[in-house]
Amino acid sequence: MNNTFSYQQLFDFSKNIFLKIGCNETDANIATNVLLSADLRGVDSHGIARLSGYVRLWEVKRINATPNIKIVHETPSTAVVDGDSGLGLVVAPWAMQVAIDKAKNAGTGWVSVKNSNHFGIAGYHAIMALQHDMIGMAMTNASPLVAPTFSIERLLGTNPIAVTIPAGEEPAFVADFATTTAANGKLEILQRKNLDAPNGWVQTKEGWPSTDSNEVKNGGALLPLGGDREHGSHKGYMLGSIVDIFSAVLSGANYGPWVPPFPAYVPMPENMPGEGIGHFFGAMRIDAFRPAEEFKTNMDKWIRRFRSAKTVPGEERVIIPGEPEREMESDRMQHGIELLQPVVDDLTQLGEKLAVKFGQ
Amino acid sequence: MNNTFSYQQLFDFSKNIFLKIGCNETDANIATNVLLSADLRGVDSHGIARLSGYVRLWEVKRINATPNIKIVHETPSTAVVDGDSGLGLVVAPWAMQVAIDKAKNAGTGWVSVKNSNHFGIAGYHAIMALQHDMIGMAMTNASPLVAPTFSIERLLGTNPIAVTIPAGEEPAFVADFATTTAANGKLEILQRKNLDAPNGWVQTKEGWPSTDSNEVKNGGALLPLGGDREHGSHKGYMLGSIVDIFSAVLSGANYGPWVPPFPAYVPMPENMPGEGIGHFFGAMRIDAFRPAEEFKTNMDKWIRRFRSAKTVPGEERVIIPGEPEREMESDRMQHGIELLQPVVDDLTQLGEKLAVKFGQ
Repeated sequence: MNNTFSYQQLFDFSKNIFLKIGCNETDANIATNVLLSADLRGVDSHGIARLSGYVRLWEVKRINATPNIKIVHETPSTAVVDGDSGLGLVVAPWAMQVAIDKAKNAGTGWVSVKNSNHFGIAGYHAIMALQHDMIGMAMTNASPLVAPTFSIERLLGTNPIAVTIPAGEEPAFVADFATTTAANGKLEILQRKNLDAPNGWVQTKEGWPSTDSNEVKNGGALLPLGGDREHGSHKGYMLGSIVDIFSAVLSGANYGPWVPPFPAYVPMPENMPGEGIGHFFGAMRIDAFRPAEEFKTNMDKWIRRFRSAKTVPGEERVIIPGEPEREMESDRMQHGIELLQPVVDDLTQLGEKLAVKFGQ
Repeated sequence: MNNTFSYQQLFDFSKNIFLKIGCNETDANIATNVLLSADLRGVDSHGIARLSGYVRLWEVKRINATPNIKIVHETPSTAVVDGDSGLGLVVAPWAMQVAIDKAKNAGTGWVSVKNSNHFGIAGYHAIMALQHDMIGMAMTNASPLVAPTFSIERLLGTNPIAVTIPAGEEPAFVADFATTTAANGKLEILQRKNLDAPNGWVQTKEGWPSTDSNEVKNGGALLPLGGDREHGSHKGYMLGSIVDIFSAVLSGANYGPWVPPFPAYVPMPENMPGEGIGHFFGAMRIDAFRPAEEFKTNMDKWIRRFRSAKTVPGEERVIIPGEPEREMESDRMQHGIELLQPVVDDLTQLGEKLAVKFGQ
């Protein structure tokens, strides 16, 4: 069986699903753009594999397909956005656009968002800034799977950070990473292959180090970037905490252990202190600091120097952040996107339920 | 021999040294405040142990004791500051104050600095925001000791990030960390004790993993947070790169392998693309997002929930960022600051050279 689909096939299917649950044309387009950018860039865990999860959240009324997204507070360079329980895939680009518009006038724009849902890959939103000759930033909190240093309890999500920086002749610098040693998606790959995880990725539910890739499913936790105290896990814990606080304590969303879960069947936490999940976006106009052309010439120099560095034995090159994802995107746009059989089955079922044909 | 000195003793000595090299009264005070905040907070590598290093930079005319620090470009929420080769200990608080003033009007303030020098501990500058009910940020690039993932060459400094966040009844959240697995100061402690380093801290000059704590002195490199690719070192590399670019490519300072060295006897890099070293500061007014009291109540809740988390076997509590340094500061302010013998000898010599009495 051929499980490779063209971008256009997946786009049409996803868009039709979003239309079926009541999104308008514009929102269905943008949500699909965001969702599929994950598949194109090789972050399969955040792409179309999650489509039926979003639909289930809509079914239990935790996602509002026709939200009234609005700014509830603002200054020249800041805003708080209320996502009205909309799809994070729609709320996030809306809020990022506010950050960009603020930056046009004030030099920079900073937007904290409450009452949202999972926003896909952070990189998509941060990349929006590049065409305006701006540095872009995007982060989000997420449901708790990560134990802070010395904690048994899961109190943080994988809380990713994306930072994009324009260059001149070189492609842009695009960093997008979870603040854990490894993203949950990488752990799931090992689970499917029945392989152990490297040390420093997970701990048992009693708080012991472990290499069992099923540990998180069994009540254990992912570990902050660094893995353990001796290798700097308190730094990963601090980074994840900063993302949580900027995204949710600044906006009035839920934070720490109170962030709502993505799976619709998991009960909501008790005594939630805020609304929905939170995001944080930033845009900085390059020429609010120095002429854009001057900056870009220096970024090209930076990139070329790093790319041409002598490598350690066995490696061919030093990678510039964003390069592997850009190569993957070009390849998948041309040759299609291969989905795992369980994802194909899930999407086929979803299509049958909502009367949208999946595949050819 | 008693090598413990009161804060006031060290303050008077340091201030008098700065006066001797030509700083005015105000600058000598602020430089001493910044320098000694490192000793108080337990970051001994960045405190008075560096005083004679600053003097040597002044001797070779790489530090200007009477700088004309000025804003060279600005928008409502941004500025670029030219430090005029001043002491980083003076330039940095000046620039952070610009960020705070911008935030008062525009909601946030973001300042990139060129033509500066080593600015002491990042935390000091970020903490300045707290008394204004603002979130503070400070980062700086530094001379290259760190090899990016897969690189043999040292292209980044330990490039620290500090983020401070006000709370209500609880003390503030204060994160301040190098973007490497371990700061160079921690490696130096192991060298003095003739102990090995944990894996993931350093590599040899040929690019092999190593646990020799003398590796960096022998031409090897510190490793980015994560240690190796499997444990997320590409994330530490991305963080260090972001600090480098925000601090130096945005401002017009030197970046990557061209950042000037701290030791005055080390020759300057060739073909430097900018001026001095670079810093980046940020201030965000809490009430540019939501009422400060509301935010602080939620920060208290965040802090208490994390502090009271169940711990892994053998640990007593989950640490809130800033707690250990706050306890150290209170202890050292009361009981004095103990210096290593080589530091006492170095300061005694420095005092003799500049006719300032050190100690009793």
